[in-house]
Amino acid sequence: MHFADELIARIKNTSPICVGLDPRLDQIPQHIVQDAPTPGAAVLEFNKGIIDAVHDLVPIVKPQVAFYEMLGLDGLAALSQTILYAQDKGLLVLIDAKRNDIGSTAEAYAHAYLDKEGDLVGDALTVNAYLGYDGIKPFLENCQKNDKGIFILVKTSNSSSGDLQDRNVDDANLPVYELMGQFVDSWGQDLIGQSGYSSVGAVVGATYPQEAAKLRELMPHAIFLVPGYGAQGGAAADVKPCFKADGTGAIVNNSRGIIFAYEKSDTFGPEQYKKAARKAAEKMKVDLESAL
Amino acid sequence: MHFADELIARIKNTSPICVGLDPRLDQIPQHIVQDAPTPGAAVLEFNKGIIDAVHDLVPIVKPQVAFYEMLGLDGLAALSQTILYAQDKGLLVLIDAKRNDIGSTAEAYAHAYLDKEGDLVGDALTVNAYLGYDGIKPFLENCQKNDKGIFILVKTSNSSSGDLQDRNVDDANLPVYELMGQFVDSWGQDLIGQSGYSSVGAVVGATYPQEAAKLRELMPHAIFLVPGYGAQGGAAADVKPCFKADGTGAIVNNSRGIIFAYEKSDTFGPEQYKKAARKAAEKMKVDLESAL
Repeated sequence: MHFADELIARIKNTSPICVGLDPRLDQIPQHIVQDAPTPGAAVLEFNKGIIDAVHDLVPIVKPQVAFYEMLGLDGLAALSQTILYAQDKGLLVLIDAKRNDIGSTAEAYAHAYLDKEGDLVGDALTVNAYLGYDGIKPFLENCQKNDKGIFILVKTSNSSSGDLQDRNVDDANLPVYELMGQFVDSWGQDLIGQSGYSSVGAVVGATYPQEAAKLRELMPHAIFLVPGYGAQGGAAADVKPCFKADGTGAIVNNSRGIIFAYEKSDTFGPEQYKKAARKAAEKMKVDLESAL
Repeated sequence: MHFADELIARIKNTSPICVGLDPRLDQIPQHIVQDAPTPGAAVLEFNKGIIDAVHDLVPIVKPQVAFYEMLGLDGLAALSQTILYAQDKGLLVLIDAKRNDIGSTAEAYAHAYLDKEGDLVGDALTVNAYLGYDGIKPFLENCQKNDKGIFILVKTSNSSSGDLQDRNVDDANLPVYELMGQFVDSWGQDLIGQSGYSSVGAVVGATYPQEAAKLRELMPHAIFLVPGYGAQGGAAADVKPCFKADGTGAIVNNSRGIIFAYEKSDTFGPEQYKKAARKAAEKMKVDLESAL
């Protein structure tokens, strides 16, 4: 099924929440780390618990590959198993890898992440378009062929995002992030589904609500992947401009605020991190609903 | 030893050539693919042959991770072994991964690629600075701590690179690639070694010699990593502007033109691809010397 259509349908049945699977070993419950034969095995065990806890509440999870690459081959094996486990539980998997390169190399990345199958294949991938159209084209082709999706970095959530993204491009009289928004809109035209949304989405940080409002108008067919809610400081009111008036059009990511919610709970026990994650996801859903 | 100093010293003893290890299975000699238990094993065997053939002629090799990720975990194991083998043979290893993310995630990438040790740790890494300074800072810190290097994308070699990189930023009255050049110069100040070069380098395509000339002035301390020679159309005359008048300051990458040189040779045999690679590297050295 067309990626954006599937995502929109699942959001309708659950929530517009993306759970970021960013497993930091020092924040994973220590009994899991101690009982596991390797760090990667601990990560996998932890992820399975989180997935079990939230799989019926959210449409999609987003493993951030940096945290798996950091653990070397053992970590990448955990990533591969995490993807399979999440998909088995009925979740879509967005691989957050921000890949980018010239066309012939981007083609290899598209094979790695957006083929029909493979160790690292997910349902969608984040990409960086600093290299322009020919570096994005191979991803678009695999989206078309294999019903996959991409999310292109437009306005990122970090405090230095303006160093380049806010600079004004004079021939267009637009800041770089709006120029990138125009690219996303144009590159996604051939991938618009019955939902009215394209499988080419955009990364737009919750930390920049004014910019998000302009981008929402500029990219009517793009689903926004919105990082920055929670730990990075964005509140529900801040993510509102990423949604359309009908309440569709965005998924809000939360990593630490859900997966490590147990750190802030006052009850303990080996299963507690799952309960805390579920509770945090439920609370976030209510928080978003009240703002939208 | 300081990364840039070491690279400059090795260039002096060999050549300003970087050999790109971009192993495409369909271009690897078929006897290697047939004899290997897995695709990754074939890639590793092929890479070892190339490294054996060129290790005394060049200072550095550059595995493009997309071609390893494409083969899944098996490919990533081959990448890990390739890094070790190349370093054992006295080569520096530049991991071409163009990583990028917000600070806390960039820190995980810096651990993955620029720690003291680890499955994927090399001597240097290519990075993409679309996210601005705080996404680069963790890499700078690891360069400082562990004597590593980074090469930041400035003006890439592909034909669409101008979509964003050539656009003029009006408050600076500079195209994006020159703004990025200013960032590279500034971010690299604390990493300048005795050679006068910084461990923060820049990726500048051979396919844009006029832009390279301006960038050479703008970044006096940056070593340029120059893709685009050979298969992508750049000639020795085109890479000249990437070098300073004294002939230092750049490494010119060649992937297909060296590793798959055997495809264009008229003698055959299982060792032929190594001989062809060595010959191609020698010829490239002469070609560069004649232009510089």
